[in-house]
Order: sequence, then structure tokens, then C-alpha cells
Amino acid sequence: MEPITRKTSVGVIGAGYWGVNLIRNFDALPACELKYVCDTNPARLEKYRHAYKHIEFVSDPETLFSDPALEVVVIATPVRTHFDLAKKALLSGKHVFVEKPMTETSAQARGLIALAREKKLILHVDHTFVYYGPVIKIKELVDSGELGDLHYFDSQRINLGIIQPDVNVYWDLAPHDISILNYLYDGVPKIVTAMGTQHIVKKNVELAHITIQYESGFVAHIHVSWLSPVKLRQMTIGGRKKMIYFDDIHPFEKIKVYNKGVDLTETDLNTFEPVYRSGDVNIPLYDGREALERECSHFLESVVSGEDTITNGEAGLAVVRILEAADLSLLNGGSSIKLL
Amino acid sequence: MEPITRKTSVGVIGAGYWGVNLIRNFDALPACELKYVCDTNPARLEKYRHAYKHIEFVSDPETLFSDPALEVVVIATPVRTHFDLAKKALLSGKHVFVEKPMTETSAQARGLIALAREKKLILHVDHTFVYYGPVIKIKELVDSGELGDLHYFDSQRINLGIIQPDVNVYWDLAPHDISILNYLYDGVPKIVTAMGTQHIVKKNVELAHITIQYESGFVAHIHVSWLSPVKLRQMTIGGRKKMIYFDDIHPFEKIKVYNKGVDLTETDLNTFEPVYRSGDVNIPLYDGREALERECSHFLESVVSGEDTITNGEAGLAVVRILEAADLSLLNGGSSIKLL
Amino acid sequence: MEPITRKTSVGVIGAGYWGVNLIRNFDALPACELKYVCDTNPARLEKYRHAYKHIEFVSDPETLFSDPALEVVVIATPVRTHFDLAKKALLSGKHVFVEKPMTETSAQARGLIALAREKKLILHVDHTFVYYGPVIKIKELVDSGELGDLHYFDSQRINLGIIQPDVNVYWDLAPHDISILNYLYDGVPKIVTAMGTQHIVKKNVELAHITIQYESGFVAHIHVSWLSPVKLRQMTIGGRKKMIYFDDIHPFEKIKVYNKGVDLTETDLNTFEPVYRSGDVNIPLYDGREALERECSHFLESVVSGEDTITNGEAGLAVVRILEAADLSLLNGGSSIKLL
Amino acid sequence: MEPITRKTSVGVIGAGYWGVNLIRNFDALPACELKYVCDTNPARLEKYRHAYKHIEFVSDPETLFSDPALEVVVIATPVRTHFDLAKKALLSGKHVFVEKPMTETSAQARGLIALAREKKLILHVDHTFVYYGPVIKIKELVDSGELGDLHYFDSQRINLGIIQPDVNVYWDLAPHDISILNYLYDGVPKIVTAMGTQHIVKKNVELAHITIQYESGFVAHIHVSWLSPVKLRQMTIGGRKKMIYFDDIHPFEKIKVYNKGVDLTETDLNTFEPVYRSGDVNIPLYDGREALERECSHFLESVVSGEDTITNGEAGLAVVRILEAADLSLLNGGSSIKLL
Repeated sequence: MEPITRKTSVGVIGAGYWGVNLIRNFDALPACELKYVCDTNPARLEKYRHAYKHIEFVSDPETLFSDPALEVVVIATPVRTHFDLAKKALLSGKHVFVEKPMTETSAQARGLIALAREKKLILHVDHTFVYYGPVIKIKELVDSGELGDLHYFDSQRINLGIIQPDVNVYWDLAPHDISILNYLYDGVPKIVTAMGTQHIVKKNVELAHITIQYESGFVAHIHVSWLSPVKLRQMTIGGRKKMIYFDDIHPFEKIKVYNKGVDLTETDLNTFEPVYRSGDVNIPLYDGREALERECSHFLESVVSGEDTITNGEAGLAVVRILEAADLSLLNGGSSIKLL
Repeated sequence: MEPITRKTSVGVIGAGYWGVNLIRNFDALPACELKYVCDTNPARLEKYRHAYKHIEFVSDPETLFSDPALEVVVIATPVRTHFDLAKKALLSGKHVFVEKPMTETSAQARGLIALAREKKLILHVDHTFVYYGPVIKIKELVDSGELGDLHYFDSQRINLGIIQPDVNVYWDLAPHDISILNYLYDGVPKIVTAMGTQHIVKKNVELAHITIQYESGFVAHIHVSWLSPVKLRQMTIGGRKKMIYFDDIHPFEKIKVYNKGVDLTETDLNTFEPVYRSGDVNIPLYDGREALERECSHFLESVVSGEDTITNGEAGLAVVRILEAADLSLLNGGSSIKLL
Repeated sequence: MEPITRKTSVGVIGAGYWGVNLIRNFDALPACELKYVCDTNPARLEKYRHAYKHIEFVSDPETLFSDPALEVVVIATPVRTHFDLAKKALLSGKHVFVEKPMTETSAQARGLIALAREKKLILHVDHTFVYYGPVIKIKELVDSGELGDLHYFDSQRINLGIIQPDVNVYWDLAPHDISILNYLYDGVPKIVTAMGTQHIVKKNVELAHITIQYESGFVAHIHVSWLSPVKLRQMTIGGRKKMIYFDDIHPFEKIKVYNKGVDLTETDLNTFEPVYRSGDVNIPLYDGREALERECSHFLESVVSGEDTITNGEAGLAVVRILEAADLSLLNGGSSIKLL
Repeated sequence: MEPITRKTSVGVIGAGYWGVNLIRNFDALPACELKYVCDTNPARLEKYRHAYKHIEFVSDPETLFSDPALEVVVIATPVRTHFDLAKKALLSGKHVFVEKPMTETSAQARGLIALAREKKLILHVDHTFVYYGPVIKIKELVDSGELGDLHYFDSQRINLGIIQPDVNVYWDLAPHDISILNYLYDGVPKIVTAMGTQHIVKKNVELAHITIQYESGFVAHIHVSWLSPVKLRQMTIGGRKKMIYFDDIHPFEKIKVYNKGVDLTETDLNTFEPVYRSGDVNIPLYDGREALERECSHFLESVVSGEDTITNGEAGLAVVRILEAADLSLLNGGSSIKLL
């Protein structure tokens, strides 16, 4: 007897740049029946009709909310619409998979979390990098204790464009870094400081530095920019024993684990001198599977089991809180903002 | 008839790590007669006696100050001794070549500048990178107007160690970046913000980010660290028309000029949309001559001509002012410090 | 009035690794009606049925040959079947697009060329790299005379696996290099030498070096291997005035044009001394369009116009001749084989 | 009581490009008394007089041969003079340290070996790379068995210039590769094939490929060139279990050990299918000490102990034999030359 595969029925709202990937991945999963794709722009839908003959294309999200057989709503629309769409989806009893950043404010994020809990529905935020092979490998290394106590996290996500018309650059790019940071390091962020400038379009911050200080002394720094000639996607995680350098531009050798560090040696009763350790560098293998495919599977399993995903509403909120604090810091001339 | 070469007599105080290079370079220049090397540590002197038989090795700086025939004193000692030694040298009528950072405070720097002016003596600060082939090439490119208006400067100078016992990391490493920044960009810095943390020795800041905002809207960011597994020496200078990436670790291709940028196109009466330009990348040739040799020659010419060097006392002061403001920002929890 | 788009009807034989890309590209072109996909392995066809509902899936190539409305047959099967399938396709009046290498022998290639000419049909060999943005850019640079007279071509195409069961490694990998070489350099190859060894499976040569010497003094060297730990795709083209380095692994900066060379300077009546020139390096922009898309369009235009494609039967034959000569050289212990 | 250091007295013939390094290193070693530097070009000597006041500068090598107190003669002159100078030195009872390549012919090399043996003197060839930290580390890895049986060695040593007026490019550059190859792999080379061309000066081969086939099936390939725009110093050593990539241009990460390979799996009674293994990459630490310093120490110890150095006359001969065979292959149109 064959195993009966439970097919979860899914509708996607938003067929733009990232929506394409969500449609492709959900459609390819055996555990999913992609029932609807919804977009208010009919031209966008047109190009899918040919390739996806079995999917219903609609322009009104209400069609999805009012279909009692639909179980999941995937929201891949601009961030300003996330709260309303997610709220309606939850109210109509659908599980929600929402694009990052989760909402425009932490209050909205908290509202959705409460609603999902009340309705006993899955609320998932699409922080894809948490499901990315290299990041999972780094998480394993951190969790193994191999790196020792963590000291800092430093990330650069810079390239030329695409300047977003309605948000500061860190709302566009930094959710990736912050979600990875939160996934890797389990400390309590205390203070956020942001510096940002505008040079070209001058409607929003186009280049920014965000610093997050933790109770433990750990510190994170994130540099995002739409104005860099070179595309850099590099992250350093410094531990007491080892350090990791993650270069996501490199086609093969993305992760380097440096057996390097500074030890303190007691030279006499009161003096401790730094001693520099330098050993081999290791480039570990990682799972090459597409992150979004892994994430969509993980989400569908959560829908069936009722257990939260790794990047649930709380994880989405944690990211929004940092971004919100960065906005506040900028409004106050770069002053330090305490996270409550 | 042969040209009469004017030989300037020079004495070096401090035969440590960097002193070695100063001794080697001054000794090799035909326009220089290296007369003294002075160090309080006799062991240090011992190793030079063999190679430099024509130089007088002394342990007391007073020997230099009291020799009326000596024209130049080169000071390559710890920063806390710079002011006293330079002051004495100037008072005894010697031209001064002092290691970076110039002094511990801007007040000290101002004092030395006034004294040198009064005595009509050359006061030079050893910001070697200003005399480095690749930096000179970048300066030419900036000055040619090829880059258009400059938007930002971003620098990373990070590696593992050597943790200095008595200064914050940016007093050790950032003078390089700030002197290059000041050489390349001629604006008025207005606000300095600093973030720094300590993780290992915990006596001083071991990892720091400094931001300098200018009246013009230009912004500079400098990341220095003693705790990085990878050695990075990279700088980006973003202009309206072109951008430069300077990677000083690369053995040959240090400078890349990106014909890249964002233009604003008027789409209708009120709307301007960003348009991304991407053209060829150029890797210009630069002069491979040793920076310190070029700097020492330049200094000796100044001594003869009486004209200031490029990195004169004012240039040294400008660097100290930024470092001082960074200290102040850190003491005030990372708040913005106005440069007066 | 709208332009009437002439839709060429196409059938693809072979739905394996590369066939997938051919199917995707031909299907997406407005000038093409992809009518058939044929594969003797029904499992392979099954996975396409879902995505390509408008295509007829068949297991017998005869279906294609006997459909009078079908204009083009695309052959993406193992090389040992190319001749038979292409011959049948031409005999039944179809234009042919055949995978590389064209045939197993130059005699077969000549046979197909003659048949196509007789039948006035297009015979095209899929040397995709000739339609690749970076290669087209290099061709432009070579043709502009900027490089001066060409001296040599050196290519490395090495990585780990996939060891083919039935051919020497150069039949698998070197068609790429040879087709690029022939496209870029228009000389007459005279002598072919090959060195090859087997280490693992030991049925065929797994690592090889092929040298091609030209009447003009120009020399080409191609290194192919299934046994390299690193994946290298690098090519150097040395000219009298400039030289090009093409690194296809680099994600962005694939082509570097070195304004470098050796000139001969007359030092006295009889002596010429080499003088080394070293100037800027330029990284030119290239067209990022998918090579296969460009190739398929070019082919369909040829079908309509009746004019040969760039990689016609003659181009395919030229590649087979080199491979055949390499086999002969190997059989004779690496001796030089004259191309007639 | 202090240990009595035995000081070996050394004279260097040839103060050219490489001679400088020999003089600097021998002079700095406590176990050495550098007594003479000899060069027929007085201008060359002049520049050392200042720095090395304790050394006697002479223009006639006979001065060295006829000084009964001198123990060692270091020969850093053009290769065509090696045999005569080394012979005279040995005949006058001096140990010999001779530049690579050892001699112009293998007959000459055999003559020197016999003479040194007869006279019970050390005969050492300066194959510096054998004393280079990264190469020693690779040797350790090979000897540990970690790589499994070795399959191949592939080396590229190419850059622009300096074209030598009197030798083929492989006599200039390939001694490095061949000496490393011989040091790492202990097999019996059987067949040498060479391909070489001339393009600019056209007096000698300026670009060459040498292949060495071994009885065991192991194969080595060496590509040397004076006409490459990029400077490459890369070597791959392929083993059954692991493979090494050695990139000597990289400032820090020169050696990469790939846990990669192809295994054969028995699929049924008669069939073995390749299975590709891919694991972590390791970048081992190596000793950063200057190779020449290590070599000179090793040589001086040999002089005292009477035991041969690693790169003794036999090692020098083994390199000359390959170069000689390469010449013969080229003269015979690239045909295979059997090493007897």
C-alpha cells in the first residue's frame, strides 16, 4: 500500500520578483497543491498561465480568503500590505507564510502573533537565509561549541541598487543579516545604534551601518548599501577559540573556519599577555539544496504538525524590533536606542 | 662640474619595529647623512652596529638635541613620548619627523605646530600611506574629476592582533585610514561617532567603527579591529560617476575603478527615477616605489626648501582631532560629537 | 498591421541533461513551435508532461522524420547516434541542430555536410560557447586588432568528474575550447599532439593535454581533466600588443584585458633587446544574455533565411578533425599528427 | 661554558640577482663566516662594500680556490660557467653550493658528482623550493599517505618575462617545478615529451609544456612561459584519496587539501562505477621561515657532518636529465624521449 500524501492547498498573493520563486517552489513540492496565484496586476499573471495550467489565477485576494478549502495563504506583496493581508488570512482561518520584513511596525507584528495563537494557526515569516545550507552549517559549528564564546558578528551586504522608493536600505537588505544573527546567536540585544545617509534619490537612507550591543558584551555590526561598486556578501563571526568568515559571493568556498584566536597567558601574578594562535583553516562542505525549497517543506510540515517553524512570528518580530529601533536612532541623530 | 649634493644630517630616536624602516630608508638616501640612532634599549642598538658601522649609536636623546650640527630629529617612539621629544627637538632648532599619531591630544599637536612656525622649522608627521603609489594614483583619479562628486569613503583595516597594551585600536590602526581620507577628500568633517568593544584583554577597545559626517553630506566610515580572522585592507570611495575599490591585500591588482553609478532620470514633471549605469572596470597601473622612500625624500626636500610637506603638523592635527572625538563619543555611549 | 511571426516547428530528440536546456529555450522562443520531444526512456519524458502540456511526447524518432509539417530536428543524444539520426533527419527534409561533438569521425561529418548542401538544409552544431557573451566580447577585442598579432591560446577546463564511460576526456570537454579557439583565431592548424593518461576507471583517457600548432607560428594548448580538485575554466590569449585572461569561474569579472607585452628595441645595428610593457588592465562589460537562447534564435533565423549559422557543419567538422588527430597522436605514443 | 660555534668560511662567486640573497643569508648565519664575494663586474661589488665592510671583494675566482683556509665556494654565475667553476672548486678541496640548474649537460653533472665523491666533499645544488615552508608541508602530507596513491602532478609557472637570452624558458623556470616534483614523488620517470614555441625574441623557446611519464602510470605536466599576462604559480597534486592545490601567489592561503576523489564501486559482477567524493577543504599552516635561510643552514650542517644535503649532486642531475630530454624532444619535433 502506498503512503497517502497529505496535500496542503496553498494560495500565493503577489507574483512579483520573489513571488516567482515561491510559486515555483510550492508548485514543485509533492506535499503541496498550489491552487491560487493572486495579483492585482493582470500582466503579471498572464506570463504564468502558459506554464501553470492547473493553477487558478485571480486578481482579488478575497477569492482566497473566502475559499473554505484553502489552507494556506502566502503573502509576497509590499511590506505596507503585509499586516492587512495576513490579518484577513488568519481571520478566515488560513495559515500564513509572509514575506520579510514581517510588518511595518512591531505593534503590527505582535497583533498577528496574538491572532495566530488565538486561532491556532501557523504564522511563518520568510527569512530564507535561515534555511540556506551554508548558514545551517555555520549554526552547527556555533552550536557545537567549536568556536568558543562568541565575541562579535560583522556583516556586509552591499552592491549597486536596486534603490527602493519607499523604505530605508536596511528595511530592504538587513532583514537577511538580522535573521541570520538571531538564528546563530541566542543573546539578548540591548542597544541599537544606526547611521545612515542619502546621496542619490535622497528620499530614504541609501547606505547604513547598524550596531547591536548585547547584555553579554557580544556586538553585531551590519553594513548595508545600495551604493557600492562591488557586490559584497561577507560575514565574520568571532569566537574565543575559532572564527568564521562567510563569503557568499564565492562560488564554492563560502565558509572558512579559522582556527585562530587570542589567548591570555598569565605572565606573572597580575599580568596577562595576549598570545596569538594560528592554525589550519577549514572549508566545510554544506548542503547545496535550494534554501527556499527547504523552507517551503519545513513550513508545510509545520502546517500538518501544528508546531511552529524556526522563523515563526516571534522571529519575524525580533527582526522588526531591530529595524524599528534603527529608525528611531536615525531620527535622534544616531543616538543609542534601548530595546525594552 | 658635478652638482653639489646637500647632505642633511639626521638622527633617529627609536629603533623599534618601524624605526628599522626609517633607519634603512634615511641611510640609503644620497641627500641624507644618518648620524645618530638613539634608543634607551641597548639590545636594540646592538643588532644594528654590525650593519651600520658609520652611524653613532646613543642611548640619550639629549646627545641629538645638543649637537649643533644635527639638522633633523626623527621620532619613532611610543605616542606618549612624542610631544616632549618633538618639543625639545624644535626648541633645540631641529626639524622634526614624527611618527603617527602625532600626539596624544590635539592641544599638544597645536602646541607643536605653533612652536615649529615660530622657529621656522619643518614639522612632519609620518602618515606613510599618503606617499604610497596606489594612494597617489587614487588621489589623481579623484582630482581629475573622473569620479564626479564624492559620496562616501568606507574602509576596513582588520586582522588578528597585535593588541596594543595602552591605546584603543583606532589610535593604532585608523591613523592610516584617516590620513588617506583627509588626503583624498577636502571637505569639512562635522560630526564623529564611534562604537567600540573589548573582548579579550579588555583594557582598551579592540574592535571599533568610526563614522565621520561632513557638511557636504559626504560620509566616511572606518572599521578597525584586532580580532578578525581574515586580514582585510579594503577601501571604497563612491563618487557620482565612478567608484573605486582599493584592495591592498591583492598582490598586483590593488585598485579597481568601476564605471558604475546611479543616475536620476526625469520621468515626468515631478518624478526622478534611478537608472543604474554599469560599464567597464579599469585596473590602473601605479608607481611601485616604496612609500617610505618617497616620503623621506619629500621630507628632506622640504627641509632644504623650507616649504611644508604634504603631511605637515596641520595634517597630523586633523587626524588627532578625529581620534580624540572618537574617544569622546565612546565615553558618551556612542553619541555624536561635533568637531568645532 | 502586426508583423506576421513565422513559427518554425521543432522536434527535440533526447531529453537528457542538455536536452532539458534545449527544450526550455526553444519552447520559450516566439519564433518556435516546439512540437515534439522524443526520448526512448519514458521516465525522462514523464517529468516534462506536467510542465509542457502543449508538446507531444514520443519515444520513436521516426514520428518526427515522418511528420511532413515538422521543419527542424534537434539531436541531443549520445555522440555515437548523431550521424544516423542527423542523416535520417536530413533525408526526410528537416533542418538539423546537432549536439557537440558533431560526429564520431570526420568522414561522418563530411557526409552530413554534403547531404545538407545537396538538400539545401541548415546543418548546425551546438557549440554553445560561441554564442556566450564573454566569448563574443573577446572575439570583438581580437577582431578590433587591439591585441596585435596573436601568439598563443591556452585553455584549462578541469574539475572532478563526471567521467564518461565511452569517450576520452577531450571528446567530452575540449569541443568547448576548440570551438572557441576556431571562432577567435582564423589560422590554419597544422600539427596536433596529444598526451593523455588514465588513473581511475581506466577505460578511457581521464586527463589530457592537446597542442595544436599553426602554420603562422601560433600555438594552442588545451588541458582537460576529470580528475582535478579545483574547477578551473581559464583561457589566456596572448597577442603582440595586449593579452586576455578569461576566467569563467569568476562571478562578475570574467575577462581581463592586459595592456602588457614584450617589445623588441634595436639597441645597435644587430641587437634587439626585449622591453616589457605593463599598463592598465581593463575588465570589459559583456552581454549577460543566456548563450543558448542567443544560439537558438540565431539558428531559427538561419532556417528562415537559408544562410548558414556561425557554427555550421564545417565548424563542427573542424572540431572533430582536431579530436580525431588527438586520438591518432595518442595511439602513436604522443607523436605529432599532421592535419591534411 | 659557551658552546663553541664552528664557523665555516664561505666565498660567493657571482653577485647578481640571486647572489644578493645568498650573500645576505650566508652573512646572517652564525655558523658562517662570509669571507669573499667575487664578481668580474666591479660595479656590482661596489654597492656591497658599504654594507659589508668585513667581506673581501675580489674579481678573480682563483683567489678563492687558492685560499687554503676557505672551505666553501658558492657559485651563483650563469649556468654555462657552473661546470668549470665547480670543478676547480672541488679540485682545490672546497665544498660546493651551486646555483640551479646544476650544469648544462648531464655528463657534466655526473662528472662533478664523481669528483665530489672522490674528494669526499659536499656538492649541493640550490633548488631553493625544496626548502620552502609550503613545499615541506606538502611533502609531509604526501608522505603521511593521506593523499593515497599519487596520480598526477601539474604545474604552471608563467608570467611576463624576463626572457633569458641564452636558454630555453624551461631551463630558466622549470628547475623549480622539477625539483619539487622529484622531492614529492619518488617514482621512476620514463618518458619526456616537450612542446615549445618562440614568438618575440625568437632565439629560444619562450613558452613550453613538458610532460614526464612514469613507470607507475603517474604523470607530470609542467607549463612554463615568459609570455603570460598573469603571473601564475599553481600546482596540483592528485591522489587517490585527496588532492592538493598549491597557489604560491596567494598571500596567506597557499595550500588547499581537498578531501575529494573518485572511488570505484562494484555495481555487479563485472561493472565498476565511479563515485565522486567531496568533503571539507583544509588549508594547513606552514612554516613561514625564508626558504634560503633554511637551505643555507642545512648546507652548512652538511659541511660539518659530511652527510649529503637533500638536494645533492644526484638531485641536481635528476633535474638536468629531464631538461636535456626536453631539449632532445623538441629537436625531434616533440617526440617522446626515453630516459635511460
